[in-house]
Parts: sequence; structure tokens; C-alpha cells
Amino acid sequence: MKLAFVGGTGPEGLGLAMRMAFAGHEVVIGSRSKERGEEGATKVREAVPAASAAGGDNAEAVRDADVVFLTFPYSGQQATLEVLASALDGKLVCNVVAPLEFKQGVGAVALNVPGGSALQEAAAQLPNARVVSAFQNMSAEELQEIHHPILCDVLVCGRDAEAKQVIIELANQIQGVRGLDAGGASQSRYVEMLTSMLINLNRKYKTQTSIRIVGIDGGQ
Amino acid sequence: MKLAFVGGTGPEGLGLAMRMAFAGHEVVIGSRSKERGEEGATKVREAVPAASAAGGDNAEAVRDADVVFLTFPYSGQQATLEVLASALDGKLVCNVVAPLEFKQGVGAVALNVPGGSALQEAAAQLPNARVVSAFQNMSAEELQEIHHPILCDVLVCGRDAEAKQVIIELANQIQGVRGLDAGGASQSRYVEMLTSMLINLNRKYKTQTSIRIVGIDGGQ
Repeated sequence: MKLAFVGGTGPEGLGLAMRMAFAGHEVVIGSRSKERGEEGATKVREAVPAASAAGGDNAEAVRDADVVFLTFPYSGQQATLEVLASALDGKLVCNVVAPLEFKQGVGAVALNVPGGSALQEAAAQLPNARVVSAFQNMSAEELQEIHHPILCDVLVCGRDAEAKQVIIELANQIQGVRGLDAGGASQSRYVEMLTSMLINLNRKYKTQTSIRIVGIDGGQ
Repeated sequence: MKLAFVGGTGPEGLGLAMRMAFAGHEVVIGSRSKERGEEGATKVREAVPAASAAGGDNAEAVRDADVVFLTFPYSGQQATLEVLASALDGKLVCNVVAPLEFKQGVGAVALNVPGGSALQEAAAQLPNARVVSAFQNMSAEELQEIHHPILCDVLVCGRDAEAKQVIIELANQIQGVRGLDAGGASQSRYVEMLTSMLINLNRKYKTQTSIRIVGIDGGQ
């Protein structure tokens, strides 16, 4: 599949692109600047020598993509989707955004966003796209260590069951990862908030944490 | 230790009391009605024949307790704590409350509560108690199957590190369970919201789910 990463030059986008390239997919790193997109693609090729990786501006990146991952900070979501809305018509869009801010002495603080969750806000801006959410809880650092399995569940939310299945299958291609259907769009809030909890656990325990759901077939 | 369960006649309170009685602690089941508290204690003794279990009204139940668990629905929290506030002065209080409601066609929906989390609201009402939160994510059904190990992490939040350590050690006494310090009081919101996510996963996958944090010493 051809996978685009909008805002893919950040650590999370790059890490996910590296894992997907490693799984054999064609990846395109998008950025507001064409040059930075190309630099991102170079980093993917450095990490995954066999990668089919290109870079460009966000609009170029999404043009022929089968799946578009949104991997920018929440603060940029509304403006970026305004620009890309028509280019994303009919596309399968996977939102990786977790709305949070950092507060001194507290750490990561999940934001209560007006639309309920970053997913629901993205879906409202992209009425003709098939929008789901996933991968918010994965450590960018661990994603970039492409030979290291990551034991975690990726919780996929959204109202389009077929679109969720595509993302679950992509998640399952990362070693150690299990994709799970975590329900409708309104459930995304819980998954997005988990990111803040895990960031704070990472800091407290000086490690990289992830989450596993116990009790579902194939779980521990 | 002597452990009291305020509102302990509900399935979560009873389940937790059974596990704690099974671990050798003295438990007291509190209810608004003395008789229902005593009925709860009878259920604990039926499940755990060796249990030291008594019942009574909530005020009696907390009187000599070392730790007081709050195991009622969020809708009753403010009123119950108003009544018990002075009786809880100086006590270690563990809030098990997860604010949520059920909506047709959606399932469990976590509430955004004015104080940030049920823990922070309880702490504000009990300024002289040592208030932490934990155990919100455990299945009442699984808790009541006392011979069945439960593989999960219990995430303990609050500002009193010693109080959290007491609760972590109690959690560790349930077979399969690992207690973790999940940070300050403001982190409780994430843990409380997880309850709704897990309830909805249970319904979707027709199972009992729980959560495990991967990547911390002793984790998988």
C-alpha cells in the first residue's frame, strides 16, 4: 500500500513511517515544506535501506495515498485539515493526534477538546473521508528502533468498520503489536488521553511504557 | 489491617472486600442501611469462609478502619462524603469511583467532572484525610471469583506517596495484580476514564478486559 504521513517529519510520524516501510509499504513523508518532507524520506531510507520512501509537501504526499496518517501536534490540526480537506476526499485517514499540553511540575495534561476528541474534530472537518484514529500511544523513540519488537495494543476507533480493519492489519505488521477495534469515534477520547498517562509514567519510571489489554483472545 | 468499604454492598465493593478478606484482612462492609451492610458481610463470609467480615452503616464501618475504600457510584459521592467528612479525618481513603453514565447505543461514557476527577473532588471534600484513588478498572465480576488470578495493573494516583504505597501493597496481594504509582491526583482522570473504555471493550469482545502497562520492571 501507499501510505502518506502528513506532518511526517516529527518523531512519531517518522517512526511510524519507518515501521511501515520496514513492513514493505511505500511511504511518502509530507511536510509544509517540500524540502523538509524530502529530508524526512532520507531519514526513513537511512533507517530502512530497502524502503520505498519519497517526500514532498503535504498536498503532494496525500495525492495517491491509500492511507493518510495525520502525525502532527494537535495545535496544528484544524489549520492543516482546512488546507487539505478536498485532497482528503474519499481517503482513508488515520488520526494519530493526541491533544495534550505540557505543564511545569505536572507533565503531560490531556486537553478536553470542543469536539470530544481529535478524531471527532477531524471527522467533522473531513465529511467525505473515512476517518479513524490509532497509534497515539506508541512511543516515537521505540517506533524508530525498527528491529526492536514493541509489545503493545493499538486501539483503533472510528465509525467505519472496514477502515478500522485496514488499520488493525497495518498495526499487526509491527512486530509485537496487536491492533484492536476499540469502538466508535466517541471512544477515541479515552485512547487519546492515555497518551498523557503513559508519558507521565515514562517520566516517573524512566522507561518507555505502552499498554496491553488483557482478556481479549490472543492477549496474554 | 482493618479495611472499610463505604457503599460496599455493590458488586465492586463486595468483590474488593472478598479479595482483601481472602488476603487475611479484616473487612467491614458499610451501607446507608445497617442491615444491608450486614447482608454484605454475610456474602463476603460465604465467598471466603475464613473471612473476618462485619457489616454496619457507613459511619460505623469507617470508625476504626485503617483504610477506607469508597465503592459507590459517582452520583452518590458528594452527598456521602458530606455526611462522612469528619469521620474520615486523618484516615487513608482510597477512592474507587469512576464517573460515568450509560448512553443507549454508545455504552459507558466517562463524565468530565468539575473538579477534574472523582479523586480530586473527594480530596477537596476531605481536606484532613489522605485520599488516593485505585481499583476503578477492575471487573467486579472477576474480583468476586476469588480463586481466579486477575492479570492487570492497578494504577494508584494521589499526592501522598506513603498512602499510595499502602494501596500498592494491598493491590499486590490480589493474585496476578501489580500496583503501580501512576502519579499525582490530576492523573486520576485518565485512570477513571479507562473504566469506560474497558467496559465498552468488554461489551464488544464479550469478555472481561483489564489493562497492563508494558515496559515497567516486572511487567511482561
